[in-house]
Amino acid sequence: MSEPTREPGFVSLVGAGPGDPDLLTVKAARRLAEADLVLYDALVSPSMLDLAPRAQRFFVGKRARKKAMAQETIHWLIIRAARRGRKVVRLKCGDPFVFGRGGEEALALARAGIAFEVVPGVSSAVAAPALAGIPVTHRGLASGFVVVSGHSEGAYATILERLTPHSLTVVVLMGLAHRSAVASFLIKQGWSPRTPVAVLRAASTPEAETWSGTLAELAVPPELSGEDGDAPGTLVIGEVVTVAAQLAQTVLPDAAVAVTRRSF
Amino acid sequence: MSEPTREPGFVSLVGAGPGDPDLLTVKAARRLAEADLVLYDALVSPSMLDLAPRAQRFFVGKRARKKAMAQETIHWLIIRAARRGRKVVRLKCGDPFVFGRGGEEALALARAGIAFEVVPGVSSAVAAPALAGIPVTHRGLASGFVVVSGHSEGAYATILERLTPHSLTVVVLMGLAHRSAVASFLIKQGWSPRTPVAVLRAASTPEAETWSGTLAELAVPPELSGEDGDAPGTLVIGEVVTVAAQLAQTVLPDAAVAVTRRSF
Repeated sequence: MSEPTREPGFVSLVGAGPGDPDLLTVKAARRLAEADLVLYDALVSPSMLDLAPRAQRFFVGKRARKKAMAQETIHWLIIRAARRGRKVVRLKCGDPFVFGRGGEEALALARAGIAFEVVPGVSSAVAAPALAGIPVTHRGLASGFVVVSGHSEGAYATILERLTPHSLTVVVLMGLAHRSAVASFLIKQGWSPRTPVAVLRAASTPEAETWSGTLAELAVPPELSGEDGDAPGTLVIGEVVTVAAQLAQTVLPDAAVAVTRRSF
Repeated sequence: MSEPTREPGFVSLVGAGPGDPDLLTVKAARRLAEADLVLYDALVSPSMLDLAPRAQRFFVGKRARKKAMAQETIHWLIIRAARRGRKVVRLKCGDPFVFGRGGEEALALARAGIAFEVVPGVSSAVAAPALAGIPVTHRGLASGFVVVSGHSEGAYATILERLTPHSLTVVVLMGLAHRSAVASFLIKQGWSPRTPVAVLRAASTPEAETWSGTLAELAVPPELSGEDGDAPGTLVIGEVVTVAAQLAQTVLPDAAVAVTRRSF
């Protein structure tokens, strides 16, 4: 930040995708390569930051058990850098406009008169299931899907309470720590305890892990043996989960479609 | 197809994203560069196919007013090419597992014992709104979203009929031709006729166009003046649409966030 220029800065609100740097978009990779400053969230992998060799890198996410940086501070950092003529990349997991507070950052930039763009990313809501062999829609099984956040009951109750059970696929982002609450909630709303579910952790990374079972099994209060409740996890609830089991009968390389049963 | 090899073939079910080749993932671009054969859908832009210089290219999508190729024929073409040792890319708009029949293709490949992978893409369900300045979730406006297909009432009625009005954002893919039916349906379910809506056409392409208005305005039977009912179009329904209007008060370059009013 020692050489402020007169050229106007520019901010890119960039989706990082689910984790694998190969699932960045071509545009996102280019913005990283050109960036002067990258402000990144938790769950953004170090190898992704390697794509921004020119840039200062600044972590603004939430670390386990610590408070996140205030959203207003993030706005201030972005705006200050842009005013100094920097090319700023605000790198967010998944898509910046899906539970990313990207809308708030866009509004803050607009109000400050800072030029910006949105670079959509691959959302974990779709990609995490896909990489486990689960299509969120599938002929005869689901003709739509709903995406909610699992971080508090307030965040999903209003939406899930009125759904016709089994009428669509339910995807819960940030749902790992609250999986038993979400499952109990759905059973109470009339979903069959035998509804197939999958829990997807660290999708698209080498640590990727899939657990599958039923809604009743998911409702059992989890034992988080040394596990970080902040770990990224996506829940998928609905008949589409059975597609993965059918696929798993075949051995598949690479982005392997493999559903394993695992107890937490 | 004149030189079948003994090496095993491989199939990549690849999401092409919303249209702009820059919104392909890095992995998708690499798969295209290495492909021997690309089977592509309608709405995949020619400049995207230029990224597959080595490949035979084969259109298997639906053209305006003509019947689509039978899904079984597509399966047969993919499997035959893979058995001949080809690297096949099955290129689908958006994400291959969101209304793309990708799940059916994956199952057909698994049953045939063909090695394959899924390369998730940027879904228009999220990207089309984002590029128009509309976050599908936004603090205080929507804590979730539902994605349905607009191609027939049967495809969305069961899902939309029980939603708590205004509890979430409704995204309708392939919704352009059926926009008035969808809007009337939601009003009948108790959604306010004044609910903000946006109609997004050809998102991420040079022809991108946004119309915004109210659910009541959308419900007026549309006049499709020379317009192709098959044109790609995404409907977004909910308070989040107002974010775009707030952003539009600022001049933004590039992936410009600009909401214009336009009659069909």
